[in-house]
Amino acid sequence: MSDVTTTDLYEVTMALSYLREGMRTPATFSLFVRDLPPGRGFLVAAGLEPALDFLARYRVEREDVQEFAAALHRPPEDLEPLLGLAFGGEVRAVPEGHVVLAGEPLLEVTAPLPQAQLVETYLLNQLCHQTAVASKAARCVLAAAGRPVVDFSLRRTHGPWAGLQAARLGAMAGFAATSNVAAAGALGFPASGTMAHSYVEAFPSEEQAFRAFARTHPGPVTFLVDTYDTEAGVMAAARVLAEIRRGPGCAIRLDSGDLGDLARRARTLLDAAGLPDVRIVASGGLDEYAVAELVHNGAPIDVYAVGTKVGVAADAPYLDAAYKLVEYGGSPVMKLSSAKVTAPGRKQVFRRPGQPDVIGLWDEDPPDSAQRLLRTVMRDGRRTAPSDRLEYARARCAHDIAALPAPARRIHRPEPWRPVVSQALEDLTSRVRGETERRFRPERRGLSGSGGQTDRKLSSSLREPH
Amino acid sequence: MSDVTTTDLYEVTMALSYLREGMRTPATFSLFVRDLPPGRGFLVAAGLEPALDFLARYRVEREDVQEFAAALHRPPEDLEPLLGLAFGGEVRAVPEGHVVLAGEPLLEVTAPLPQAQLVETYLLNQLCHQTAVASKAARCVLAAAGRPVVDFSLRRTHGPWAGLQAARLGAMAGFAATSNVAAAGALGFPASGTMAHSYVEAFPSEEQAFRAFARTHPGPVTFLVDTYDTEAGVMAAARVLAEIRRGPGCAIRLDSGDLGDLARRARTLLDAAGLPDVRIVASGGLDEYAVAELVHNGAPIDVYAVGTKVGVAADAPYLDAAYKLVEYGGSPVMKLSSAKVTAPGRKQVFRRPGQPDVIGLWDEDPPDSAQRLLRTVMRDGRRTAPSDRLEYARARCAHDIAALPAPARRIHRPEPWRPVVSQALEDLTSRVRGETERRFRPERRGLSGSGGQTDRKLSSSLREPH
Repeated sequence: MSDVTTTDLYEVTMALSYLREGMRTPATFSLFVRDLPPGRGFLVAAGLEPALDFLARYRVEREDVQEFAAALHRPPEDLEPLLGLAFGGEVRAVPEGHVVLAGEPLLEVTAPLPQAQLVETYLLNQLCHQTAVASKAARCVLAAAGRPVVDFSLRRTHGPWAGLQAARLGAMAGFAATSNVAAAGALGFPASGTMAHSYVEAFPSEEQAFRAFARTHPGPVTFLVDTYDTEAGVMAAARVLAEIRRGPGCAIRLDSGDLGDLARRARTLLDAAGLPDVRIVASGGLDEYAVAELVHNGAPIDVYAVGTKVGVAADAPYLDAAYKLVEYGGSPVMKLSSAKVTAPGRKQVFRRPGQPDVIGLWDEDPPDSAQRLLRTVMRDGRRTAPSDRLEYARARCAHDIAALPAPARRIHRPEPWRPVVSQALEDLTSRVRGETERRFRPERRGLSGSGGQTDRKLSSSLREPH
Repeated sequence: MSDVTTTDLYEVTMALSYLREGMRTPATFSLFVRDLPPGRGFLVAAGLEPALDFLARYRVEREDVQEFAAALHRPPEDLEPLLGLAFGGEVRAVPEGHVVLAGEPLLEVTAPLPQAQLVETYLLNQLCHQTAVASKAARCVLAAAGRPVVDFSLRRTHGPWAGLQAARLGAMAGFAATSNVAAAGALGFPASGTMAHSYVEAFPSEEQAFRAFARTHPGPVTFLVDTYDTEAGVMAAARVLAEIRRGPGCAIRLDSGDLGDLARRARTLLDAAGLPDVRIVASGGLDEYAVAELVHNGAPIDVYAVGTKVGVAADAPYLDAAYKLVEYGGSPVMKLSSAKVTAPGRKQVFRRPGQPDVIGLWDEDPPDSAQRLLRTVMRDGRRTAPSDRLEYARARCAHDIAALPAPARRIHRPEPWRPVVSQALEDLTSRVRGETERRFRPERRGLSGSGGQTDRKLSSSLREPH
């Protein structure tokens, strides 16, 4: 089992057939999200760095050929044409952390057809999952409106690897820390965490639990106060905190109940105990909706720990992403099957201050003062630049989200920010659609059959409104 | 980075404190799902095998200590008490594939407190994710009512590891194959997959694409027919299939549009072409709801390929699972914080034919003709039996689901099958609750404060109704 065999079998059957038929002409595939899920006004591009690592080391080894052969019930000799195949193509992509919108390519691959096909499954796996989670995390940061957000998701992510990525994507989105020790180490990011209810239960009283914890841990401490009765827990924490005088950075954590109400009572008790610097951390099933409500209601919560719902992007755990052939042998290509039209050709996204993005052709002139979102990140199978740095992605994310119109940033019922299509891409789409229909749907030419419907759908969803 | 550091930091801070305080007394933690998510009438236990692998090899190495120390900004010497710590405890658990219900322990760990605490995050991560996906997959098998179901989820799972697990859990739930080559190899399970739309687009015509594919692949072939116009695609496939005469096992695949309607038209065309043995495979955003509707409407679809929504358990991507201290130093323990009451003590689940499960105490006598669901699977940190076999888990799953009452098996608005609580566990809970309240909530004794509310909640959700 390797990254190479971590693929849908059909990539292998197709690639083998291409090789047998001598079809090694360069092809361009475009990876994009067709529509934003409900509850998303924007997406945050993520997954590119692991995807490029994968492409850079991609090579079909003998064991991979044997595994392919076993899957196909064929002798390994039949799969020999794949042996040694590496990825030697070009990749143009949106760097991690940038905001992306429906229909905008996250990544385009141009490579000999078998290569470009073989890497499809893994690329989709990386970019779909990570963009989904990064987008959710970014909304939590928006909801917290400046207060620190911490990742507590590891126990509920879809495996340990997804937990590592959740921490990474939280960091990209602007989180302050993660509970995940391995991730913190790997990312050079702060780790966070103190005690569970079981710790408190293991001592004869809350106060004894807090004192024992402080004995072991000499720095600032956070005490979990809701194991039995929350107000009594806060009082016990206050007594110990007043006694140990650990200075700023100490906190109590609330993990259940009406967090806003309990935070207010806790704040009152802590202030009355002369502990105005002790912060209040809230956790327990939080997501951007819960955080936004607490913030809106003025809950005196200083730090929000989000876990489960963010680590699995619970309300949108997948994206409607596709990896579509848009150019083959130098000619733009599109398919027509119902409701899944893909605009042909190599693309670029032009971002303009205060105006909608323009999806255009890779080589067309940009509109005035537009930024090109896709960059050439790999040529001849090698990265064109060193690995991207997480802090750059984090800065892009903060910048791009700040530049979004308010309705797209809204937590409740956001309005997706929609790109428009350049005239050049519109013209190309129209030409290729006409040619494809004449070839494959002679009987429907000019009629409003399913082909016509999907055309209208493409136009209405992408055409510039003015 | 290792499995050992793939943990929430608080497990480490707590374990260190326990060691410093000399608290090595055995503790029992219970891992269970509090409530079923909407849309689930039962769960399928999964994740135990990887969890046991983790426990069997668990050992804190020097690099782990260094990573812990870095996370805590402390010198590695401070973390020395953790060095060499291995898991030497006992595990009682429900074997994979069994149906489990709300409140039933999936797994209980009894080990010296620091050990039992340190493994929490990883155990939750494994069991939550895998039980969520296995339960979704099992519903797809129910919906398909005997027709083969195939896993196509790899491109949308939360990383490659989750993709491997999705294939494994599909196999456990009764799937017929997976598209994931690596998973098929690792599991000894059939691999499935033929061509994407891009393959068809890379040829001058559909017919040429199908012929080329058949040239490369000598066995049974499946042609994707909806790249341009589905009926024209079926006709092209029929011409090639009639010509190449590959015998049974050939198929066409529909991936978009009104699958029921298109399948009917395709069936008519294939039958008219003298190809009654050519099967119809459907894919494209399917889940148990879509499959159930197609089956209900009599769509002539022979194989259902499910992907995205099943691989991420889209409508319930996480479970409300907890890992709670239920016994420490030989005494049962419970916490009282609002709405999260945990019954104390070591537990067993008794399953009776045609009657609700009984959650009782580990050592109580079983009701008549009851099966004990939890088994001792690890003692002194070593498995008590060889690794479980996937086909056994698959058989348990099929058996247990067949034994469920129909309302729990229903696809739309299932009624969760609810366990009851034995008198012995009820008595213990009542006694420990009283003792805990007297110790920690003296001011509320006998009043209907939050403690009383949670008591009622526990009773009403778990008490035997008759």
